[in-house]
Amino acid sequence: MSVITPKKNKKDRNIRVDAQRKVSGKAKFIEDAEYKNILHGATIRSPVTHGCIRGFKNLEDIKKMPGVRAVVKAEDIPGDNVVPFVKEDYPCLADKEVKFYGQAVALVAAETPEQAVAAMRAAELKIDKYPGIYDPVEAMTPDAVYVGGDENVHSNFKIRKGNIDEGFKNADVIIERVYNTGHQVHCYLENQGMTAEPLPSGGILVKGSMQCPFYVHNALVKVLGIKYSDVRVIQAETGGGFGGKEDMPSIIATHAALLARKTGMPVSLIYDREEDFHAMSKRHPARTRIKYGATSEGKLVACEAEYIVNGGAFCTLSPIVAWRGIIHITGPYQIDNVKADSYAMATNTVPCGAFRGFGQPQVNFANEILIDELAEKLDMDPVKLRKKNLLKPGSITATGQTVGSSCGMAETVEKTLDRIKFKQYKGSDSGPVKRGMGMATVFYGVGLGAEGKYFAKAAAQVHIKEDGTVFVAIGNVEMGQGAETVFNRICADILGCSYDMVEVLKPDTTRVPDSGPTVASRTTLMGGNAVKDAALKVRESLFKAAADKMGVRPFDIKVKDGKYVSDEGEIDYVDAVNLAYQSRERVAAQGWYKIENVSFDEKTGLGDAYPVYSFSTNACEVEVDTETGVVNVKRLVAAHDVGKAIHPPSAEGQIQGGAVQAIGYALYENLVMEEGKILNPSLSGYTVPTTMDICDVEPILVESAYPEGPRGAKGLGEPPMVGPAAAILNAIHDATGIWFRKVPCLPEDIVKELSKELK
Amino acid sequence: MSVITPKKNKKDRNIRVDAQRKVSGKAKFIEDAEYKNILHGATIRSPVTHGCIRGFKNLEDIKKMPGVRAVVKAEDIPGDNVVPFVKEDYPCLADKEVKFYGQAVALVAAETPEQAVAAMRAAELKIDKYPGIYDPVEAMTPDAVYVGGDENVHSNFKIRKGNIDEGFKNADVIIERVYNTGHQVHCYLENQGMTAEPLPSGGILVKGSMQCPFYVHNALVKVLGIKYSDVRVIQAETGGGFGGKEDMPSIIATHAALLARKTGMPVSLIYDREEDFHAMSKRHPARTRIKYGATSEGKLVACEAEYIVNGGAFCTLSPIVAWRGIIHITGPYQIDNVKADSYAMATNTVPCGAFRGFGQPQVNFANEILIDELAEKLDMDPVKLRKKNLLKPGSITATGQTVGSSCGMAETVEKTLDRIKFKQYKGSDSGPVKRGMGMATVFYGVGLGAEGKYFAKAAAQVHIKEDGTVFVAIGNVEMGQGAETVFNRICADILGCSYDMVEVLKPDTTRVPDSGPTVASRTTLMGGNAVKDAALKVRESLFKAAADKMGVRPFDIKVKDGKYVSDEGEIDYVDAVNLAYQSRERVAAQGWYKIENVSFDEKTGLGDAYPVYSFSTNACEVEVDTETGVVNVKRLVAAHDVGKAIHPPSAEGQIQGGAVQAIGYALYENLVMEEGKILNPSLSGYTVPTTMDICDVEPILVESAYPEGPRGAKGLGEPPMVGPAAAILNAIHDATGIWFRKVPCLPEDIVKELSKELK
Repeated sequence: MSVITPKKNKKDRNIRVDAQRKVSGKAKFIEDAEYKNILHGATIRSPVTHGCIRGFKNLEDIKKMPGVRAVVKAEDIPGDNVVPFVKEDYPCLADKEVKFYGQAVALVAAETPEQAVAAMRAAELKIDKYPGIYDPVEAMTPDAVYVGGDENVHSNFKIRKGNIDEGFKNADVIIERVYNTGHQVHCYLENQGMTAEPLPSGGILVKGSMQCPFYVHNALVKVLGIKYSDVRVIQAETGGGFGGKEDMPSIIATHAALLARKTGMPVSLIYDREEDFHAMSKRHPARTRIKYGATSEGKLVACEAEYIVNGGAFCTLSPIVAWRGIIHITGPYQIDNVKADSYAMATNTVPCGAFRGFGQPQVNFANEILIDELAEKLDMDPVKLRKKNLLKPGSITATGQTVGSSCGMAETVEKTLDRIKFKQYKGSDSGPVKRGMGMATVFYGVGLGAEGKYFAKAAAQVHIKEDGTVFVAIGNVEMGQGAETVFNRICADILGCSYDMVEVLKPDTTRVPDSGPTVASRTTLMGGNAVKDAALKVRESLFKAAADKMGVRPFDIKVKDGKYVSDEGEIDYVDAVNLAYQSRERVAAQGWYKIENVSFDEKTGLGDAYPVYSFSTNACEVEVDTETGVVNVKRLVAAHDVGKAIHPPSAEGQIQGGAVQAIGYALYENLVMEEGKILNPSLSGYTVPTTMDICDVEPILVESAYPEGPRGAKGLGEPPMVGPAAAILNAIHDATGIWFRKVPCLPEDIVKELSKELK
Repeated sequence: MSVITPKKNKKDRNIRVDAQRKVSGKAKFIEDAEYKNILHGATIRSPVTHGCIRGFKNLEDIKKMPGVRAVVKAEDIPGDNVVPFVKEDYPCLADKEVKFYGQAVALVAAETPEQAVAAMRAAELKIDKYPGIYDPVEAMTPDAVYVGGDENVHSNFKIRKGNIDEGFKNADVIIERVYNTGHQVHCYLENQGMTAEPLPSGGILVKGSMQCPFYVHNALVKVLGIKYSDVRVIQAETGGGFGGKEDMPSIIATHAALLARKTGMPVSLIYDREEDFHAMSKRHPARTRIKYGATSEGKLVACEAEYIVNGGAFCTLSPIVAWRGIIHITGPYQIDNVKADSYAMATNTVPCGAFRGFGQPQVNFANEILIDELAEKLDMDPVKLRKKNLLKPGSITATGQTVGSSCGMAETVEKTLDRIKFKQYKGSDSGPVKRGMGMATVFYGVGLGAEGKYFAKAAAQVHIKEDGTVFVAIGNVEMGQGAETVFNRICADILGCSYDMVEVLKPDTTRVPDSGPTVASRTTLMGGNAVKDAALKVRESLFKAAADKMGVRPFDIKVKDGKYVSDEGEIDYVDAVNLAYQSRERVAAQGWYKIENVSFDEKTGLGDAYPVYSFSTNACEVEVDTETGVVNVKRLVAAHDVGKAIHPPSAEGQIQGGAVQAIGYALYENLVMEEGKILNPSLSGYTVPTTMDICDVEPILVESAYPEGPRGAKGLGEPPMVGPAAAILNAIHDATGIWFRKVPCLPEDIVKELSKELK
């Protein structure tokens, strides 16, 4: 057996491992599926926001349309007609009642995509319309139309810490405001899509764009009523997720699978942008009321808050969104007396779900403007006010958790403000274009925390081939965020091989155990630790082989620059692999990681909610054109304590991308609904910032190592999205003197408020 | 998260797990590849047995033929132009010299299979013909044409044990004979075939019919000159192998991959039967000379032997065939003085390779007729003569290895002869149809032994899903022999789940470490032990969870009827899985197995050649029509000591299938060559026995547990093929009084010898 030694390619260590295939156009997305004979699916959807389905007007005609091979209705579902999320209320296909515009009622498969769409468009449903309710606060009223949950409450949480009345009694200043945040659409480049293929064993193979192959696996088991071992889910190259491919792919996957099982053929189900807008989840709109009490010296002594999000027609992940929101609702401040309640409400709007930040952008928007408003009221510098109260190692959070040693909060503030040379303009510009500066601080619980404890695990497999190249199999996905590169670096650095020797494979649920979802900025911590576990184990074989050769003990060996070094000499990594192969040492290992130290008492809302927190500070300078209302973010600096950046360019990219998405959230993205129906379901109607609209976001990495993290890393995917909106609106206040308390904050809003001021 | 509990399907435990998909026609073979856009390859082959290629006469014309997308020649190979087997002499595509009729010279890819074949047929090569040599004994002469190896010797081995001259000096009777055995064709139902697909990363994905995905992986690395991590090999459903898909698929895979890389498109390369006959490996024809010396009481005291096999034009696996042959050349007898030599010779015939039995049917044919001839000479019952000399626990083999406790040799003799009511007819029938009985004993070294020590390892991964169903990933293949069922049983019995809960996955070289080849009856022992290792490890998590629940220690738990039982109570397997999931225990494990206790000294031919031996006895009754020469095997009984039959119906099926293949070898299968060219390359020209030609083979399982084997199992795939040919020819002697010393023993051979007798 010959063994080739690959040249150590001295690729720039900054290059992401997925870059080449993506920029060259070679990456294969689900639309590139190579099936010879595949049917195309389309979804027949509710044309009303609330109603009772009485059947089809023209089912037999549809079945006879050219190319149509199958129509699937709720009654055809062999398992349970439910896509399992936190609760089991979301029907795979509407049976009797429809609860939102665009809800899936039936499916059609045809020989061409055009035939499928024609059949879908021709389908007419018999529906008795019901009255609908679209506002979450209205949904709380006693005589509101019933949509779902317990009296329209999908879920609620509370925190009761200290004595809230005493707290406010001791406050010299009290301030209370209500903040509103709108829907936000993920706008991933690649729409949702899946293929499903019947397997010879009677099982089903589903491939698609997704963040959570194991959620999809669970959903298929449930809807098809088959064994876990009859389901295989493989993640295809995924063109962006942002949370939108956390929960929703389970729906598309079950739909594609139902069509595949009915026809006995592979079926492709790929959404166009309009369908994706109407039917897929969004960021929860929220109404956040916060009341701070502070001493005249600026010490925060009490916080009372109410956080109401619009969950939409079905529960999906709303409980977890409402939970993450309430855990972080006080802001990154130590406040001894807290009373907070969060509600996820049911309405006849599109179900909202996971979205980068996951309930935190809404509350951060509120508390980080409110802290500025409080500073104004106290006549205190808002930076100084924050510094008096910010969390530091040893501080106690709103849930009574003690902040650990990995807390770079203060350093993120210093570095951000230094970089941007923070100062307040206080409306000092004289022309129509006024400059302003604003800031916002963020803390972010890494991972799923105590409410997602069941998923707080991850698995990986590392195996080394004869030439020293390495396959890493893992249950967490690359969706553009850089996970492949992070896993590559963790594995290669432990083994001592070059980065181009490590290949990270796409998740396949038959090959890797449930590793939890790829969400909640948990991937580097959880998946990274699983890779670390496996790589360390398999390295034992290499150390053993190298030690035998050098006549030392395995624990005498250290890895240094691709060599295994002991006092007796050194052996190249590839030679150690050869030795291990010669002696047939175990060259593969299974890695595992789980988190133990989380807790949450639902009665008090107290506990160690997350294993660790990331911290960040955002500051920006804006120009507000007071004549047109156009806001231009001129600079945005964001310093993030990430524990440790495994791959700094990816980490910086996350900070920049998150900030841009937050700029869109703050100033551009306006989903318009009328009676629960989206009126602008397109990228021309719903505007996201383009490269021409944004500044160069300046990222700063702060590293306050987390001992439990792989190389000290915590999580970063979501925090960059959380803080900028408040920083921007604080800056607009600095420029204009007006407190805007909603996003999106559109030019027309600004012009309207400014014109009020003039009156 | 909901967890469904699958019904415990009380399927008959006898049903093979691959049966349903195969009998229903749902199994997908490589010809069922689902690619939307795939090119079709064809191979341009040498029309001479030996010559020098001067190029194409009409290359440019071929390139312009309809649908032709690429022609690949040796010069287009980016890596090394060699398919690595034991040596590196087999070119992927002939460069200058061609050495056998049908050797691959160039490749063509076209849009349809018909266009590819048309281009292949139109291709004309400029070739200077060389003289050829086709007989292995002639190849040994000093002035023979040079074909390959060292003076036409691909490889040779020897055994020098005791003192051969003393041995024969002490013998009262000496007998020496020469036996000839012919080519045999695998005649798998499914011809060879592969698809190759360029991957977005720049790598290559190859799927196909194969026994050894890791050999294919190695070959692709070599020929394409790329990293191991750039190659992915997946075994497709495989319609029979018998050794023919051990080495040869590496050739087809590299050919398909070369076309795929040249065109940038998926390419399918599937052989028709004629091409498969001409170009693919065969069982080595052999000339075996054995000389036994025995005392007048029948004690074998000396054995001298020479074993010459025709390796064909390239070496492939001939050294291992010659090695296995020599290790077993004395027969299953203790003989203290041994001198043996084996030679694999190079000739201008199609390269011979792996075939069930792997060099042993040839030598067993010789020693098991010779022992009968010796009995005749000693005027002793051949059963009695065997019993005096047969290996038993503590015996010493030809290589000086002590036979271990797992030796059911004697029991197989007793049970076989009892069942068939063995007696000799000695030509006593008076009519033209004469009955006869014959027997043959066999010992068989399990696995690759000392010469394949590098591969004496296997890996598996077991992971348990939420509902208790299990995925087993393994590096060894199902090719019809029942491996999937064996792995299923081993895993399910350790975990305590039902058989329908365990799914064994097809090998994928990116997911499972090199587990060695699926050959040499090693799969149950090696792969089975790797599955056992993984299943035991993952069961630790279930035991831990169950023990915590029951308040006992994990080692207090036993598995009984799908329950985890302790003195404090019991928990269902599925409940234990649920508990493990709740506490996020590790639900996957990597299994590994390697063999240490083998050795071989090439200078003396002594050592512990194999970790363990399987033993068997075959006996048959034949009817010989002395007028037509037609031999009818009326009964065939075969008892096999398999250590332990993991799945008895599969084990019995192996015994029956092997015996039928041996009947074909003995009486039917006649590959006719003229000057090195096969004249009957088809299933109508080359006759294999059909169901109308064979008797019900009666299998007997003898279980002499091997402590190192999974549940005591050894190996069984090959032994059933080894012994029957000698038993049949011994029976023909019993019927006719004539010693036939060659296979195939055709009706015309019998008529010819009988007519000589009459003269």
